Amino acid sequence: MAAEPLILVDPHPRTVDLIFDEATRERLFGLGQLVVHDDGPMPAEVVDDLIAQATVIIGQTDLPIERLARAANLRAVFNVEGNFLPNIDYDTCFAHGIRVLNASPAFSLPVAEAALAMAIDLARGITAADRAMRTGSERYGLEANEGSFLFSGSTVGIVGFGDLARALRPLLAPFGCPVKVYDPWVPDRLIVESGCTPAPLEDVLATSKVIFVFASVTSENEGFLDDRAFSLIQPGSAFLLMSRAAVVDFDAFVRRVSAGQFRAATDVFPQEPVAADDPVRKVEGLLLSAHRTGGMVEAFHDIGRLVVSDTELVLKGLPPVSCKRAEPETVGLMRSKPVAKS
Amino acid sequence: MAAEPLILVDPHPRTVDLIFDEATRERLFGLGQLVVHDDGPMPAEVVDDLIAQATVIIGQTDLPIERLARAANLRAVFNVEGNFLPNIDYDTCFAHGIRVLNASPAFSLPVAEAALAMAIDLARGITAADRAMRTGSERYGLEANEGSFLFSGSTVGIVGFGDLARALRPLLAPFGCPVKVYDPWVPDRLIVESGCTPAPLEDVLATSKVIFVFASVTSENEGFLDDRAFSLIQPGSAFLLMSRAAVVDFDAFVRRVSAGQFRAATDVFPQEPVAADDPVRKVEGLLLSAHRTGGMVEAFHDIGRLVVSDTELVLKGLPPVSCKRAEPETVGLMRSKPVAKS
Amino acid sequence: MAAEPLILVDPHPRTVDLIFDEATRERLFGLGQLVVHDDGPMPAEVVDDLIAQATVIIGQTDLPIERLARAANLRAVFNVEGNFLPNIDYDTCFAHGIRVLNASPAFSLPVAEAALAMAIDLARGITAADRAMRTGSERYGLEANEGSFLFSGSTVGIVGFGDLARALRPLLAPFGCPVKVYDPWVPDRLIVESGCTPAPLEDVLATSKVIFVFASVTSENEGFLDDRAFSLIQPGSAFLLMSRAAVVDFDAFVRRVSAGQFRAATDVFPQEPVAADDPVRKVEGLLLSAHRTGGMVEAFHDIGRLVVSDTELVLKGLPPVSCKRAEPETVGLMRSKPVAKS
Amino acid sequence: MAAEPLILVDPHPRTVDLIFDEATRERLFGLGQLVVHDDGPMPAEVVDDLIAQATVIIGQTDLPIERLARAANLRAVFNVEGNFLPNIDYDTCFAHGIRVLNASPAFSLPVAEAALAMAIDLARGITAADRAMRTGSERYGLEANEGSFLFSGSTVGIVGFGDLARALRPLLAPFGCPVKVYDPWVPDRLIVESGCTPAPLEDVLATSKVIFVFASVTSENEGFLDDRAFSLIQPGSAFLLMSRAAVVDFDAFVRRVSAGQFRAATDVFPQEPVAADDPVRKVEGLLLSAHRTGGMVEAFHDIGRLVVSDTELVLKGLPPVSCKRAEPETVGLMRSKPVAKS
Repeated sequence: MAAEPLILVDPHPRTVDLIFDEATRERLFGLGQLVVHDDGPMPAEVVDDLIAQATVIIGQTDLPIERLARAANLRAVFNVEGNFLPNIDYDTCFAHGIRVLNASPAFSLPVAEAALAMAIDLARGITAADRAMRTGSERYGLEANEGSFLFSGSTVGIVGFGDLARALRPLLAPFGCPVKVYDPWVPDRLIVESGCTPAPLEDVLATSKVIFVFASVTSENEGFLDDRAFSLIQPGSAFLLMSRAAVVDFDAFVRRVSAGQFRAATDVFPQEPVAADDPVRKVEGLLLSAHRTGGMVEAFHDIGRLVVSDTELVLKGLPPVSCKRAEPETVGLMRSKPVAKS
Repeated sequence: MAAEPLILVDPHPRTVDLIFDEATRERLFGLGQLVVHDDGPMPAEVVDDLIAQATVIIGQTDLPIERLARAANLRAVFNVEGNFLPNIDYDTCFAHGIRVLNASPAFSLPVAEAALAMAIDLARGITAADRAMRTGSERYGLEANEGSFLFSGSTVGIVGFGDLARALRPLLAPFGCPVKVYDPWVPDRLIVESGCTPAPLEDVLATSKVIFVFASVTSENEGFLDDRAFSLIQPGSAFLLMSRAAVVDFDAFVRRVSAGQFRAATDVFPQEPVAADDPVRKVEGLLLSAHRTGGMVEAFHDIGRLVVSDTELVLKGLPPVSCKRAEPETVGLMRSKPVAKS
Repeated sequence: MAAEPLILVDPHPRTVDLIFDEATRERLFGLGQLVVHDDGPMPAEVVDDLIAQATVIIGQTDLPIERLARAANLRAVFNVEGNFLPNIDYDTCFAHGIRVLNASPAFSLPVAEAALAMAIDLARGITAADRAMRTGSERYGLEANEGSFLFSGSTVGIVGFGDLARALRPLLAPFGCPVKVYDPWVPDRLIVESGCTPAPLEDVLATSKVIFVFASVTSENEGFLDDRAFSLIQPGSAFLLMSRAAVVDFDAFVRRVSAGQFRAATDVFPQEPVAADDPVRKVEGLLLSAHRTGGMVEAFHDIGRLVVSDTELVLKGLPPVSCKRAEPETVGLMRSKPVAKS
Repeated sequence: MAAEPLILVDPHPRTVDLIFDEATRERLFGLGQLVVHDDGPMPAEVVDDLIAQATVIIGQTDLPIERLARAANLRAVFNVEGNFLPNIDYDTCFAHGIRVLNASPAFSLPVAEAALAMAIDLARGITAADRAMRTGSERYGLEANEGSFLFSGSTVGIVGFGDLARALRPLLAPFGCPVKVYDPWVPDRLIVESGCTPAPLEDVLATSKVIFVFASVTSENEGFLDDRAFSLIQPGSAFLLMSRAAVVDFDAFVRRVSAGQFRAATDVFPQEPVAADDPVRKVEGLLLSAHRTGGMVEAFHDIGRLVVSDTELVLKGLPPVSCKRAEPETVGLMRSKPVAKS
């Protein structure tokens, strides 16, 4: 191995400028010898030339078993999209002690703060009231609050207790809301330690005035929030879909909201961009967000900081602690779509 | 004095049903002999008949010096609107040890949670993005966030550090925002104890990415947020007017927002209802709220609980601690408009 | 009234140097014309000479009705001991709008942090274990923890929910302890808002693993924690007496602790200094503290800051907000002993 | 593999009763077929007989490469002492995807709450004042607080930001102390996210009024807190050694405390039990604790809950999340002593 570790930077469809602010880029370039390919994916021949020397790969580079077989110095691979894609032979990585990581925690806080604001918006009718005032149909004071409820103290349900939910949890704390959590991958103990109550999905849906869905899609849970699930939700509640459209039966979801059973917000749609004539655009009780709660400049720059922070540890021979790790038990279950562009 | 204390209930323009839920009404009716007038203000002759026996008055009853001169048993008067009106001779009350109180703290939490949601809304463009999606002009991901900023960690400024601001303070805590406060009535010490930094108005305006205005109107501060003040606000900031329209030069305010200098939200307007053709209804960067952040059923019921809670103390010979007290030094400065109706 | 307000500083038995640090003294001396008497109480003739001009009095100066009759400019009197003494004609002060204040909040945080440490000490046996190690009788690991319990999550009871308790409350928050509160002067609402549960005294005593007594002495509650009350405390609990010895039957208290029913800490004793041969000095289960949890340099300097902070407001014609106010309803009930010396 | 997973329980020197309370034991026994050996280490022949079938091992069983070669079903090994011992071939475990875990997080909260109490004790002189009162040498009030300082708001330094420090962090939050952290294994980002400031060791020592040492011993840091390090500590500060005696030069430490440079507390000693005539027992400024802050019944029972919680996940094919994982990069650096007995 050369004196200076070799770091391949292959962030496509992200770019170096998008994910590294100046200070972080400077830190990165001080860590070793960098080979950066920013204009489309790094060409296969470049990767093949350098794979034997590379210590760290930052990007979504294909890593089939043959390449990994030659990657004698490789210690860590960082996905900068926020996914674990199927273009890596994970078993080989695990067997060789190569850390496979992604920078998804960068999106947690942006999504969480938006989710909180949207939840209060639904409870209090904020966006709807703004719309009413623009059309001259507003009412004032008490009458203006028909159908509204105080968010503070309301029962809250969380479906999926991963990074997003854990970023939301402290933001909820001062509101004094009792919080129930459904997540079959997370032990009760950890949920309780976060000041929440573990509960079956049905119970979360049926007893919560505000329901946050943060569950990611796996090969086992597509569409698990189906019409029967929606039927359990209390009239007048608020439902927020913040993770992936594929976890819900989207048609049933829109139908229920259109019918006025509950108010909802969604940041995701089965097809994006949404068709110009998609009736979802007109649903009165639905707060619409064009997959925008995570994709902020601040989040992209945070990807860079997460990656450099863990790269520094890895190069010192220490375990990475900031990015999310691919876990042997679950990486194969993930159903992530690669990002088309940022 | 009769064995049972006499309590006059004269809540107009509120009603008994509006401010007392069943449990609270039951507590109230257990406290003594009640005379309730719910259908318009209590007639003068009724008040005059009973004033000499009354121990507590709940309502906006006129209490000029002549009436107070006869009110030998009176210990407390509760305004259930949330104001201190000029129809009471306060000096006489103070000299006679009659507590004059109002139930305005009931509105603090409803306003505070809405203010937080609106602030994140402005920072993240939530309502505007919903509108864009309804007109088919939305963008996705990073592009959709042009002009947005992360609320977490942003500099926050608060103008007016009364009940509303103190209800907001804990809600802000988990966001890690440095908070500057301007309030000439509140000592630095108390601001610092709340984890904020006291600062002159100009500094708060010029250095805060998010500015909350909670100041009430006094005889000394009408229109103190004028065009010069607005000129100090950083481009791209968020400004929230949550208290009274009279503290700002409203025309200048709307002009600045229309021109795109900063995003804003307002819950109050110089004339309410707002005229059908008022151009304020069309301002793109302005989140419109028809004086509705406080007036929730939950808040009205809380008025009742505050009043009964303090009435219980007063009847036990203890000082009231839940409602807001009229203070000799400041009650004369207040410029409250009576509520037309709830 | 002269252009410059006259401020009498008569802090005996405190001294100016004790309660004002340099920065605070500078603030004070900028507020008007000061007359300071530091060497014993201000002589009666000096007070009588100046009372008609004085706007603020800082100290324990006698203020009988005759003096107050001449105090035409007086707006505020600050007790710097932390008590309301019977040497003031309170009714006259209330009738004339003279604020009577004391600086007792200065002691809240010092007492609260010590109370927390002592509570964990009792739960975990910290001082006792140190003692054991000094005599060579220590045990190690699990065996060393016989009789100990984890403070985190333990049931906590608070008797007296005034300033001391409210300073303790946030320190308790991260421990996740359910907290019951007994205070007949404080409405349930306020206790609930603080995240605690109001409860009768018997319930607090019988169900709490850790009991904090912060109650002050009134004409009505001397010795209310008597042998019957102590009999309710669970074996193995921890009891902390942090306010005044007179609220407990001290003999019964010491007897119960000596018998090993519960562990205890006390910062107060019926006679101070405690007699050299008082058997209380030998009680194994009692953590002994010689009335020292409040009296810190930092607390005395905070008295000065509290007083100057409120003096500044009073001189601007605003209500004081930092010191504790004498309340017409309760000031007559207080049973404070003047401080002999600091 | 059998229908029911085989779980070997070999907790020596712990016992089943010590680490599993009834409810947890019941959960454990419902998870599969258990083979329990409680009376000394599980005999080699028993282990050898069962290793090929075992899915989970709970205990400190030797796992050399030859045994692991036969452990075709093994998915997780739980150390219930709180250490990673050298009797396991870790590389083989990592290559085969066998999770090696320990239950050390069970001790974090017990140690953290004791550390906080001891820190306040040192700042406020609590144990020393109790001792003074037992010998009749106490002083009262202000005089009793010579050398004391208010813990609230004091500068705090933390050396070693692992589980113990992270359990302490929230307990510190309400005290408003600025906190500096030194830990070369933890990235700045994570320290900052915890509301602390990363700093070099020298800076932490020189600028903190209260210093907590939580660092564990590695092959690289023995005695890194040496006399030179101690010389940097401010006079009158408080120093708490809560992890392992081997991280300090213990003689230098005791010498500095004896000389009165700073107050200190220690829960660990180079030799335990401490010799009867060890002069450390007499050091006035040292709070002595016989390795007892972690070893509580509650902590031992928590070991059981942690282990069962992760066993449940592992048997469902999910990654463990409650126990501490052995990390390939660092497990070889750890210098843990096996526990002699609980």
